[in-house]
Amino acid sequence: MELLRLGAVGEERPYARATDGTTYDLSSVTAEIDGAFLASDGIARARAALEAGSLPAADVEGLRVGAPIAKPAAVVCIGQNYAAHAAESGAEPPKEPIVFFKHPNTVIGPYDDVLVPRDSRRTDWEVELAVVIGKTARYLTSDEEALACIAGYTVSNDVSERAFQLEVSGGQWSKGKCCETFNPLGPVLVPADEIGDPQALDLKSFVNGEPRQASNTRDMIFSVAALVRDLSQYMTLDPGDLVNTGTPEGVALSGRFPYLAPGDVVECEIQGLGRQRQELRQA
Amino acid sequence: MELLRLGAVGEERPYARATDGTTYDLSSVTAEIDGAFLASDGIARARAALEAGSLPAADVEGLRVGAPIAKPAAVVCIGQNYAAHAAESGAEPPKEPIVFFKHPNTVIGPYDDVLVPRDSRRTDWEVELAVVIGKTARYLTSDEEALACIAGYTVSNDVSERAFQLEVSGGQWSKGKCCETFNPLGPVLVPADEIGDPQALDLKSFVNGEPRQASNTRDMIFSVAALVRDLSQYMTLDPGDLVNTGTPEGVALSGRFPYLAPGDVVECEIQGLGRQRQELRQA
Repeated sequence: MELLRLGAVGEERPYARATDGTTYDLSSVTAEIDGAFLASDGIARARAALEAGSLPAADVEGLRVGAPIAKPAAVVCIGQNYAAHAAESGAEPPKEPIVFFKHPNTVIGPYDDVLVPRDSRRTDWEVELAVVIGKTARYLTSDEEALACIAGYTVSNDVSERAFQLEVSGGQWSKGKCCETFNPLGPVLVPADEIGDPQALDLKSFVNGEPRQASNTRDMIFSVAALVRDLSQYMTLDPGDLVNTGTPEGVALSGRFPYLAPGDVVECEIQGLGRQRQELRQA
Repeated sequence: MELLRLGAVGEERPYARATDGTTYDLSSVTAEIDGAFLASDGIARARAALEAGSLPAADVEGLRVGAPIAKPAAVVCIGQNYAAHAAESGAEPPKEPIVFFKHPNTVIGPYDDVLVPRDSRRTDWEVELAVVIGKTARYLTSDEEALACIAGYTVSNDVSERAFQLEVSGGQWSKGKCCETFNPLGPVLVPADEIGDPQALDLKSFVNGEPRQASNTRDMIFSVAALVRDLSQYMTLDPGDLVNTGTPEGVALSGRFPYLAPGDVVECEIQGLGRQRQELRQA
């Protein structure tokens, strides 16, 4: 089962997609795929309704695909969590998880346009495994507890403006991470128990059809469980929060590829989670 | 007129306080003091209702004081915006505003307890002028436009754990800014047009009754208007967002004062905006 939200911006409605590809209207189970839904065993209820045959099949032809969760209360991001990306960024692998935030209003649908900011010179892509929190995470003591707090996974493009992030920021990265449209998310939320091991997923990105990033989540320095456990020592994560778990090597910051320009097309893909695609436009 | 929210955690209701100190129930005007209220000229509607005598006086004796705005979609923070504080932190005054975020779930009422995090050694206070956004701020071109986006002002304590912020963070400050209870806010929201010049406000903090910080917003490196204008080049600020504008010298990080411990009492005060008070407890 995959969960998704379809409809115009701000008017998305919840749907569930079965393994045979049929899409069902989830409105009878919940009005929204958000923290309250996830915290109240919403995924189990959606699955039960799907299996009971009580959801109406939906004609979704032509509907826009929104982000698969409602706007999160926080978008927590992990920096330099793949050793090769740390190296291409000119940094040593971190000894502790590095944490920064994106403004939650950066979250858009997986096929929406990404806007190159005004005065941008260095707009960059970053495919990332995105974790959606399902239960409150506070002072967790084990990886098992941490994994139990995860509702599911989706694909994130942690779009970044490197000049804003590194040249005019006084060293605090969020300044280059928060431009409007800078967090395409989706296309679908896959429940954690259907993904199995989150540390065995291929993740890739492409620009104009040419490969850029190609790695696997086994190359993370800090595993998904370790990240959620560690974050919970420094903040309380709430149901519905989004955690972007860091990007592997192969971004423009490496110097190996040109930065993004209007008209470019970025695609980000993770094994079992689908592919997203954005066209770049000028803000 | 001051706007405030009173009631148990999660059950706060909106009130307006007249200059004579009488508190009125604002429920007939709005259910919540949030972005939608502020963006729809809510302050003008509240003032009109107050002046028309159409609001019922309320007996608020014994009610808890909540944060004066509903949980913001983003808590944007400015670092080292007073030269003397930059110096006591061991840094040069910044050439551009430094931006980081707090998790919005850190926002609590102005008299709620602050929790010293587990394994904390360096929990610190920071009185700050807090800006509440009233209109969407995007690519603003003048200070006048920036000021027109501000709904009002309140008092923020940007509580910080310096070891989390500086020693185990890889240099990204948010890790020491997001512990639960780390953003006491209030007691009241004062409309921008009743504050006059936001660069002429005394701001002070006290620990156990002893003075710590004592400065004036005229000492900001980047003015409130400059900050909002600058932020709008790097992100879109939405109605209801909170901007903490930086703290003056006199925090424990300076080495002049001990860090906070359970049982300590912190007070933060800004001219025209009132005083908040928190007791420290162990998480």
